[in-house]
Amino acid sequence: MTVDPLQDIPDIADIHLAHARIRLQIRQTPVLNDPGLDEELGCRLYCKCENLQRTGAFKFRGASNAVLRLEEEGIDGNLATHSSGNHGAALALAANLAGRTAHVVMPDNSSKMKIDAVRSFGGVVHFCEPTHESRKAGLDALAREGMIAVHPYDESSIIAGQGTAALELEQSVPQLEQVITPLGGGGLIGGTVIATRAWGVEVFGVEPAGAADTVLSLERGRIVDDYRPDTIADGLRAIVGQRNFYLVQKHVKQVLTVSDDDIRRAMALFWRKLKMLIEPSSATVIAAVRNHPELFAGKRVGAILSGGNIHPSGWNELTADASTG
Amino acid sequence: MTVDPLQDIPDIADIHLAHARIRLQIRQTPVLNDPGLDEELGCRLYCKCENLQRTGAFKFRGASNAVLRLEEEGIDGNLATHSSGNHGAALALAANLAGRTAHVVMPDNSSKMKIDAVRSFGGVVHFCEPTHESRKAGLDALAREGMIAVHPYDESSIIAGQGTAALELEQSVPQLEQVITPLGGGGLIGGTVIATRAWGVEVFGVEPAGAADTVLSLERGRIVDDYRPDTIADGLRAIVGQRNFYLVQKHVKQVLTVSDDDIRRAMALFWRKLKMLIEPSSATVIAAVRNHPELFAGKRVGAILSGGNIHPSGWNELTADASTG
Repeated sequence: MTVDPLQDIPDIADIHLAHARIRLQIRQTPVLNDPGLDEELGCRLYCKCENLQRTGAFKFRGASNAVLRLEEEGIDGNLATHSSGNHGAALALAANLAGRTAHVVMPDNSSKMKIDAVRSFGGVVHFCEPTHESRKAGLDALAREGMIAVHPYDESSIIAGQGTAALELEQSVPQLEQVITPLGGGGLIGGTVIATRAWGVEVFGVEPAGAADTVLSLERGRIVDDYRPDTIADGLRAIVGQRNFYLVQKHVKQVLTVSDDDIRRAMALFWRKLKMLIEPSSATVIAAVRNHPELFAGKRVGAILSGGNIHPSGWNELTADASTG
Repeated sequence: MTVDPLQDIPDIADIHLAHARIRLQIRQTPVLNDPGLDEELGCRLYCKCENLQRTGAFKFRGASNAVLRLEEEGIDGNLATHSSGNHGAALALAANLAGRTAHVVMPDNSSKMKIDAVRSFGGVVHFCEPTHESRKAGLDALAREGMIAVHPYDESSIIAGQGTAALELEQSVPQLEQVITPLGGGGLIGGTVIATRAWGVEVFGVEPAGAADTVLSLERGRIVDDYRPDTIADGLRAIVGQRNFYLVQKHVKQVLTVSDDDIRRAMALFWRKLKMLIEPSSATVIAAVRNHPELFAGKRVGAILSGGNIHPSGWNELTADASTG
């Protein structure tokens, strides 16, 4: 089956359908605002806490939608994907809840916590080298064995599922002017631009400076697929997908970059104000808002915090230089 | 002014009034349920996340109510209290928002983080020895200087404020059968039994085994005020107050105790399932539900998580033995 990716992009109706499908399986995550954080940032920030989503990341929305759609369509079989961790854990749980098994190709430098998480939800881990090509080859091999490949972001049902976070954010907070999300492979921001087009907000993406493949791709007008990422934000090392890049090109106001030090300081700030640990990928949005008062000052900003899968024992080394940040 | 404490106990109307007074100042904290945690515990647990309350603990509810009531009544002046930390930070912020200053008597072994928190909200710290008598003497001295003493728990407006957490919990989750809260000085459980009496649930309290002064007081039929606490749950070392003891005697189904090791394991379990760090005091309720399937199995249980003021850097030492717990 050959599909033109740009003909296979969900619309707002798909996101509403996805929400109806997954709503009893996902957690309706809270939206938190903190006046002290607002004062520090100079805007009103409404944080959609997907770090508190089941499996600790927004990824469960897309995975749940992908698996429940297979159930609806009567398509049996086990699942396969590649993932640095959060999508793998999400698909493992979504598959498990449907009596299926998920096989997850993971880079061999994935954190032990993310590997354990996949296994704890019943997933089977297959290690590969930490490169885009090796991940892809691993997934292709599993697909040839007959498993149903569920791409972590460049897939319509995944993008539609991720868009439900923005849908809930909009239902919780009236009159947002801007929404900002982390940008790795582009599943979250892809769903977000579709979900938010009807209400006319500006959408911003954030990449770590060491994984700014999308910024580079935007400059060149095509996806740069040989980018070698180097960042502590392990959830954002993926290369932007085709559907995702199209949506970013067409609908995203601007993609910002933040340094790893910015990320560390943002994690420390967020913990101090909100008492929540968020993983580096999530902290990128706090860092970007902090770095760009010219874009966000005085605005009502929705921030999607993508995940919370950082082990507390990693906190010291991550934020050692940032405790006063 | 001499007040008979047992004639100065709030009723359900006071709790509704408190909620109307403080609702724009507090955070309406989320109530989270996790199917994986439920499976582990054998009941349905609805966690009222006061660890995400402003200042990181439910204490801000009572402090906010106490200060806003003074505002309503036109009573000027700065405030004084004693606190191991969370009430102090809460009163500091509540005072600050009203243009007042809070003076906080703190044991000299209080955690640096809790001391810093009081100061960051504009409070002034006065150190004392870590004994009940020394705290009380410190507070009496400040009161003699003309400050308005706001007792951390044995005071009507504080108890009424703390009861608003249970009120919101009830509004979020229909048909709870039981509610469980940590028990230190008894402000939270006191407010909780008043708030919940109308809907007929069983209320349980939990004390660390090393700070089980209320259990001992219940056995003896009078408050044991010379108890020397020894527990990692620094928020629960206070001696139960008079109003609070009366409410516990009259309305609490049972006060359970948990060991410090139970608490460590519960913190690790909660982090694994919910991706939130909760302070040891909060984890007592998870530990108690886990230890007592004969009381909670199959029930719909509301758990009030009292606070989240633990520094991530303390995590390793707190949970070193409990990571597989």
